[in-house]
Parts: sequence; structure tokens; C-alpha cells
Amino acid sequence: MTRDRPPLTRWLPILEWGRHYQAADFTGDLTAGLIVASLLIPQAMAYALLAGLPPQVGLYASIAPLFIYAIFGTGRALSVAPAALDSMLVAAGIGAIAAKDSPDYLSLAITLALLVGGLQIVMGLLRLGVLVNFISGSVITGFTSGAAVIIALGQLKHLLGLKIPSASVILPLLRDTIQALPQTQAITMALGGGAIALLWLGNQPFSRWLQKRGVRAIAQIPLVKSVPLLIVILSTVLVATLRLDQQGVAIVGSIPQGLPPLTFPTLSLDRIQTLLPLALTLSFIGFMESFAVAKSLASQRRQSVEANQELVAIGLANIGSAVTGGYSIAGGLSRSVVNFSAGAQTGVASMITAGVIVLTVLFLTPLFFYLPQASLAAIIFMAILKLIDLKTLRKLWQYNRADGLAFMVTFFGVLGLGVQAGIFIGAGFAIALYLWRTSRPHIAIVGRLGETEQFRNIQRHQVLTCTEVLAIRIDESLYFANTKVLEESLLQAVADYPKIEKLLLVCSGINAIDGSALATLEQLRLALKSFGVELYFSDVKGPVMDGLERIGFVEAVGRDRFFLSAAQAMQQFDCQLA
Amino acid sequence: MTRDRPPLTRWLPILEWGRHYQAADFTGDLTAGLIVASLLIPQAMAYALLAGLPPQVGLYASIAPLFIYAIFGTGRALSVAPAALDSMLVAAGIGAIAAKDSPDYLSLAITLALLVGGLQIVMGLLRLGVLVNFISGSVITGFTSGAAVIIALGQLKHLLGLKIPSASVILPLLRDTIQALPQTQAITMALGGGAIALLWLGNQPFSRWLQKRGVRAIAQIPLVKSVPLLIVILSTVLVATLRLDQQGVAIVGSIPQGLPPLTFPTLSLDRIQTLLPLALTLSFIGFMESFAVAKSLASQRRQSVEANQELVAIGLANIGSAVTGGYSIAGGLSRSVVNFSAGAQTGVASMITAGVIVLTVLFLTPLFFYLPQASLAAIIFMAILKLIDLKTLRKLWQYNRADGLAFMVTFFGVLGLGVQAGIFIGAGFAIALYLWRTSRPHIAIVGRLGETEQFRNIQRHQVLTCTEVLAIRIDESLYFANTKVLEESLLQAVADYPKIEKLLLVCSGINAIDGSALATLEQLRLALKSFGVELYFSDVKGPVMDGLERIGFVEAVGRDRFFLSAAQAMQQFDCQLA
Repeated sequence: MTRDRPPLTRWLPILEWGRHYQAADFTGDLTAGLIVASLLIPQAMAYALLAGLPPQVGLYASIAPLFIYAIFGTGRALSVAPAALDSMLVAAGIGAIAAKDSPDYLSLAITLALLVGGLQIVMGLLRLGVLVNFISGSVITGFTSGAAVIIALGQLKHLLGLKIPSASVILPLLRDTIQALPQTQAITMALGGGAIALLWLGNQPFSRWLQKRGVRAIAQIPLVKSVPLLIVILSTVLVATLRLDQQGVAIVGSIPQGLPPLTFPTLSLDRIQTLLPLALTLSFIGFMESFAVAKSLASQRRQSVEANQELVAIGLANIGSAVTGGYSIAGGLSRSVVNFSAGAQTGVASMITAGVIVLTVLFLTPLFFYLPQASLAAIIFMAILKLIDLKTLRKLWQYNRADGLAFMVTFFGVLGLGVQAGIFIGAGFAIALYLWRTSRPHIAIVGRLGETEQFRNIQRHQVLTCTEVLAIRIDESLYFANTKVLEESLLQAVADYPKIEKLLLVCSGINAIDGSALATLEQLRLALKSFGVELYFSDVKGPVMDGLERIGFVEAVGRDRFFLSAAQAMQQFDCQLA
Repeated sequence: MTRDRPPLTRWLPILEWGRHYQAADFTGDLTAGLIVASLLIPQAMAYALLAGLPPQVGLYASIAPLFIYAIFGTGRALSVAPAALDSMLVAAGIGAIAAKDSPDYLSLAITLALLVGGLQIVMGLLRLGVLVNFISGSVITGFTSGAAVIIALGQLKHLLGLKIPSASVILPLLRDTIQALPQTQAITMALGGGAIALLWLGNQPFSRWLQKRGVRAIAQIPLVKSVPLLIVILSTVLVATLRLDQQGVAIVGSIPQGLPPLTFPTLSLDRIQTLLPLALTLSFIGFMESFAVAKSLASQRRQSVEANQELVAIGLANIGSAVTGGYSIAGGLSRSVVNFSAGAQTGVASMITAGVIVLTVLFLTPLFFYLPQASLAAIIFMAILKLIDLKTLRKLWQYNRADGLAFMVTFFGVLGLGVQAGIFIGAGFAIALYLWRTSRPHIAIVGRLGETEQFRNIQRHQVLTCTEVLAIRIDESLYFANTKVLEESLLQAVADYPKIEKLLLVCSGINAIDGSALATLEQLRLALKSFGVELYFSDVKGPVMDGLERIGFVEAVGRDRFFLSAAQAMQQFDCQLA
């Protein structure tokens, strides 16, 4: 479908949906925009704190990116702004280079957003969007679950009022938290616990209660989803009235009022070199999560998203964030789902959200002075818990050990070595497991199924075979990693059946044969010949046959050695099937 | 076959062949042992110089390792001693850590041999020998060819008498050599050129001349293969009589006389850390080349070699080299072929070779004082040129672009970035290409071939199809990297045939389905259902079906949706084929 669109609307999807925009769309967009704004205001500040940045940086990152993505993005309901995993990566990565409260820290985060955006645009223009396919689903789930555990644990110190350094790997984090437990501040804990309780009640129980009163699902959303905003307001009022900040409750403090500052990120070769590995990881992960969310939402409405255009759109949004004093952004899962279910039809919803945030930074920031950090931590905590997905692990493990292992390696890699190392180790591990599997191909000795033309495994079916011909089906493409193993198993099979004169390779499972495998096949043919066994082929697929023809293998072996089907070969051999 | 042997002979193959050793074997072993010794004496010194080490270190590395491999190795004709590629790696690797003439250089090389041996033994005990399969044949050929170019070019300075630093990447090497060309020493060039001419004549032309005189092939070997020794003797006499060393000809100089020194390699944590990456590469590459040679020779005599025992044997030989003042060794190709064709039947041949080298270091080293380095360089030069294999590149390119590309990436990687980086980039590239190919599966719409039960591609064969059923054969296992692409192509195919009611997936080419692919299949089934198209499966292989049963997919989809063959499905559907 993408191919038919004129070039301009391919680069500017807003022209596509803008042309068909209707009044009915606006109702949905307006509701969704307002609801997402109420969710995003506390979230943006919370994620900024998670990233080690001042809260207003999160708000700044929630304005320009939303406008930009609305213009360039193909995912209509995607809500692009600060996200949990990415904030965590920023904290771990930049925290390793600069001290958290140093002026350099913010400047590095802004440059990072610029680099991430640049890389994403380049990847999009080079059409590298398909690369995300190489991260297996189990690795993504393992990564998300592991990062969620780290983030959730990291919030404990805010929820309990502990003073410990932030950490991005499990062992120091657990050790520091446990050691500091005796210093728990009762009031902070009460605030944090209260917020968590409210958030929990506001979710399923409140929803069920509303349902019982006959409130329709669509009408529930504004009520249910404004619980975080309610908590922000309630807890701020509570802290301000009782002056709980004087009792040791950590508050957000003063947030500068006014529009996001126009920023020129500092770019030096030195800086780029330092930040590049982090920027690469972040550009990849940020895109991956955004694309997965956008795609899953779009498919529910039969719309389509285009990977490379998404890369460009998110890249531009990141650059937009950097030049307006924000940090790196991505399409968050939970926020986008809210946007979608609250009725967002187009990017107009995101523009409305951004408009509300503009009003917030212009007029409302003084109101956040007494906002306790524990409330923000509670919002992160409850949002992030949902990402710990052990149900998937159980299912994966049951179906396919390899997928389960990849999940666990990623999960424990993230916990033990950090988010960045974890995803690379996990992705590499999943690919290695796949290669490992293909390097040990399954082969089956086959025979004819009754009077049909079908040949199946002699160990699974009652089939007919003959003594002079051994028919073996190879269940894998032949390539360098499995060609030696295969040669050995075939020679072994021939040794096990000393009476055979012909070896028929049934190639229905062979989808490709590379150069190394071709050389091995030639050696195998000669070795078999010296034992008095002739090699035949059947069910060779078109593309494979083309290659064998081209290199002269078919000619060398003899064209009469190739049969269309095993049935045809057996008929030709005229052998007694029994 | 390996499995039947008693454990002790599995670990000590000498017990196996020793029991059946006959007088007739000794004739072959003696001839081969002496011929290889005459070849190895100049080679060992030459390769030591190539590695940046004193010549006697090469001789020391040609004693203990040969005895040890004869006891533990499964490749009976393999000649284990200093080798060209490995010497080059030592020069590049240790040259980057220590100055070539510093005392530390030798000590590092000895420690390296110990580490390489230790790693190989560990790999063997962990049964990691199969890992070599993951380096594709085209990468190995590209690597060998690239390293050969670098080594050959590096010999030019010795052949021409130029004074330039050694380099392991092409650009500085070429630049330095060309810049120094005006300083060419005429006498050195004459010696080097003469040696090369003699070596060239001694090869094919001499062999042909002998053949014409009626000399049998087996009798030619001692004559042809002693040409290098002849060159050593001739050029030494020439330099000594004319005192050409006073005319600027570089000579080997004094070599200490006596048995190899018992050495205790210096091992510190710091040293191990520095040398580990190099040791890993070297242990892998050394084993890879040794195993390839041993296997190819053994298969010509219907003997077998066992990868993990080979790792242990070569590892022990490396350790033996390290504790007797030698450096890392491997089974060299050309030398082993000479050993084999000269009639070596068992490890006794290598023991005889080692015995000759012992006599050499005891009594003959003073004779090498006037040996010109140009002669040694000529021997390396001619030996290494044979490894540049562009014929294979042409053939690979013709058959399979991917293999040709992998060759070239490795080749130019080695030239431009060095041997170590080159092989890693090449190996990674070959694997990436394989993954890339499997990520874009070939799918074919199939129809029935006349009155048979065979279903083949409608674009290649005259087949019968029906309007309500679309039968698609997927030519690849389904896994995370291709599942999204596949989903899109299937949906596209369904869109192209709007009249269909049933989609039949012919799974004969699907050898596995992972967790991600299973999830996608489920989504696809629901998506198709919403378009009014039902999904069916045929030709699902046993192991794949087992997995689908286990996770409950078969139950969920309906057992009646699975058919043994496409023919059976079509019969059941009762559709009009035309």
C-alpha cells in the first residue's frame, strides 16, 4: 500500500490523514489528547528524575517531539515522549561519564538526544528498519522484564525516603537498599504507600466498580486514567499544607516557568566518540519499542506503519527534543495504549497533549513545588510492574527451550550486567542458539506411505522401503555450519545399511546450498562412489536447482541423477518396496 | 568408530597405531621424516624470523611439539611445527605490545604459546571442536589468501635488502616498501632472486624433467623437496666464501648450540590479560588450519581424526613448545602434504624429523652463521604464494554471491585491518549474510503437477490450481528474523487473490518454528479469519508437529486443519483443480 502513495505524503504522512480529517475525528482526538496530557505531566517529570535530570527537562521533551511526530509519523496513536527504559539507559550511560548533579550531565543528555535522532534518521534513510527483526521476541520480553525489575527496585529509595546512590545493576542496588532500610522515613513511606494503594485501586477495582454502576468502557477511561494526576494534586496539597518537606519528605522543588529554551547541543568529536555506543543502543532500543507499539495499535485499526519512515519521524522528534532543552524520547507502550483507547484518531491528539504541556510549563510549574518525589516514584513503580512478564517466559519455556533460554539470558544479563550489556548479550545469544540449531540438522530415513506418493520418516509412520535404496530427507538448508556434521551423519547412515547401492537425498527441506556445502556434497559423492554407493537427488527446489545448474554440478553429477520426487525416483530405480 | 575404542587409546592414539606397527611402515616413516626435516630446518628458522624471533626459537619449536603430537594426535601425517600464518599473527600481536628486539618480546611469545596450548586443551575438554564449523570455507580461504599477500609482501624487504619496519597491514607496508626501493642492495637482490628462481625451477620444471627421465613419482619427492635445503647450503657457502656479509648482505649470525633450554614461561595476571585476545585468536586459527589439513589427509587413507582430541594434542604440543623455549605451533599445510606423500604412515615420521632437528641444534647451528636472510625470505615467499587462492574466489562468486562476498570482505579485512581483525570481521559477515538470507524467505504458490500428488511452483511448472484455495510453500524455517517479513508476504498474497477462501501452507520446507514465529502464526490466523480466509497446514514435519502439539497450537487451530500432504488437503477440500 505504501508504494502507491505519492512521494510527498510518504515523507509527510500528515498530508495523507490531514486531507480526510473530519469533525468526528476531532472529538476522539480532543478527549485522548487531554487524558494523555493528565497522564504525561507527572510521567514526564518522573522519567526525567529517573534519568537523573531536572523534572522540567521531561516536560520540555514532551512538547516539540509530539508536534514533530504528528507530522512525520505513520503510527497515528503513538505517544512520543520520555519513556521508562530509555530514561534508565540515559541514567546508566551518562551516569558513568559525568556526576549526576554536574552541569555537564544535562548537557551530555541533550547532546545524546541529538545523536540518537541523527542515527535514527540515517538508519531510516539507509532503510535499516528491518534490522529490528533480528532481535527475537523472547529477547525483547526478557529485556523489558529485566529493566522493569531494576527500575522498580530503584524506586524503592524514593518510596521509603532512603538516601542511596542510584545503581543500574541488581547486586549493588539490592545491597544498598537493604543496608539503608533502617533509615526508612515513615512519612515518605506513608505517602508512597498511599499513592501505590490509590493507583492499584484506581486500576482494576475502580474500573470494575464503574462497570457495575453501568459506566461504559469508553467513559471509564478519563476517570481511571486521571488517577495519577489526582495523586499528584492530593499529595502536593497534603505536603504543602502540613509542610511535610520540613519533616524530610523529598519534594520536586522549584521548576523554572516559561517556554522550553532554544538549545544548541554541544557537539565535539570527543563528545560524539564518548556518547556513540550509548547513542547507538538508545536509537535502536527507542525505535524498537516505538515501532512495536505503533504496529500493534495500527493493526487493530487495519492501518499500516512503515518502519523506515518511523525511524525518520522518531529521529526528527529526538532532534526536536534536543534543540528545545529536552532529552531522548520514544513511543511509550502504556501511554500510547491510553491514547488509542481514549479515541485518538490522528496526530491531532498528540498536538493537543503538547498544547496542554505548553500551558503547564508557562503557568503551572510553581504548583509542583511541593509535589513529593514519592508520588512520582509510585507512578513509575506501578507503570513499570506491568512490564515484568513471567507468563510469557513460562509459555516460551514450554514450547521451545531455546526461546525460554534467550529470555532468561537477557533477563539475568540485564539484572547482572546492566540494560545495555543485557540486550546485546541476549540478542547475540538468541542468534547463536539459532545458528547452533541449524548446525545440527535433523535427518530422517524415509519410506513410501502405502500406495501414495508420499515419503515419510520410517520411525514415525508405517512405510515401505527397499533394501538397495536408502532414501534420506535432510531437514535443513546446507551451509558452512552444518555441512561437516551432515557429511558425517550421512556416511554413518550408509555404514548402518551396508546392503544399499543407492543413496537418495530427498531435498524438500533444503532451501539453499552454499559454496562450502556444495564442496562437501562433491566430496561426499566421491566418497560414496568409492564404497560402491551412487548418490541421487529428489525434490530439489527451483532456486536451489538454479544454483546447481549454474555452477555445473548437475552436469557433473549427471542430469539423470535428479528426480522431481522421491516417488518418481523409486519408480525409476524399479526397486521392490516392502 | 571413535566411540568403540577403549578410553586409554582415545586419549593416547599412539597405543592404537603402535600395536599394529610393522616394519614396512618404518620405511615410509623414515623417508618422510628425513625429507620433512630437510624442509623444516630452513622453514623453522624462516618462520621464527617472520614472527620477529631469533632463528633458534623456530628450531626449538620443532622438537618437543613433534614428539608430543605423535603421541596424542589422531592425524597421523600431520606435521606440527612453526607455521606461516601463526608466525605472522605473533609478529602483529606481540609487536603491538613490545619492541621487536626487547628481551620481553621473546618472553611474551613463549607465554603466548603456553596460553594458546592451555586454551586449546580447555576447548578440547569442553568438546568445543565443533565451533570451527562456524567459520565458513570462503572466510578461511579469504583469510589465508589475504594473510599470504601480507606475508609475501613483507618478505620483499629481505629479498631486496631494504631497511624498513615490519607492518601487518597493506597500506603502510606498500608505502614503506615503495619508498625504500631506491635503497635496494644489488647483491641481496641477486641472492634472493636466485633463490626464488631455483625454488621455482625446483618445483614444476624439475619435476617434469625427472618424470621425462623415467623417475617414479615417489622417488622424485626427496629430490624435489630438498631444493630449499640445497639453497640454504649453496647460499651459505657463497656468502661465507665471498664474505658478502661485509657487502651488506644480512645474515642469520650466531645461533646458540645445544639442546632447547627448559623454560618456565612468566605468567602474571597482567600478562594473561594482555595476551588473552591474541591467544584466543591463535588457538582457534592454529587449530582450524591443523584440523583441516589432518582431516583432508586422513580421509585420503580412510582414517579418521577427532576434533576434540586434536585440540588436546595440539594444545599439549604448544605447551611442550613453550616449556622448551619455543613459540606457538600448528599443523602446516605444505609440510604435512610433503610428509604424507613421502610415505609417512604414523607419528614415527615426525619423531624422526624431531630427532634430526635435535642433532641440528646440537651440532649444526654454527654452520648457519653465514646463511643469508634473503634465502629464508625466498623460501617463505615461494611457500606462501601458493596460498593465494583466487581461483576459488572466481568459482564461489559464480555459484553464490554470498560466499564470494564473504571471501572478499575477509580478504580485504585482513589486508586493510590486519589478520586478527580480518578473520573476525569475515566470520561475522558470513554469519550475518546467512541470517540475512534466512530473514527473507522464498515463498512459492504451488499447484498440482498433472495427475501426480506433487505440488510445485506455478511459475516454474505447468500445474493445476483452484480458485478457492491458495496453496503456498514456505521455503525456510520460521524464526524471529523472518516471521514479520513472512507475515507481510502472506497477507500480500491473500490480497492478490481476493477470491480465495482457504490458505494452505505447505510446510515441507519448514524445519523449525520458534516462539516468535508461533505468535505470528496465531496473529496471522486471526487476521485471515477476519478477512474470511481460513488457514490450513500440510506436510508439517514430525519434529515441528511435536512442538505445535505440545504448546496446544494444533488443538487451538483444530486438528482437522492439518493434512499429511497438499494432495490430501486438496482432495478433502473437494476443489476443482484446473
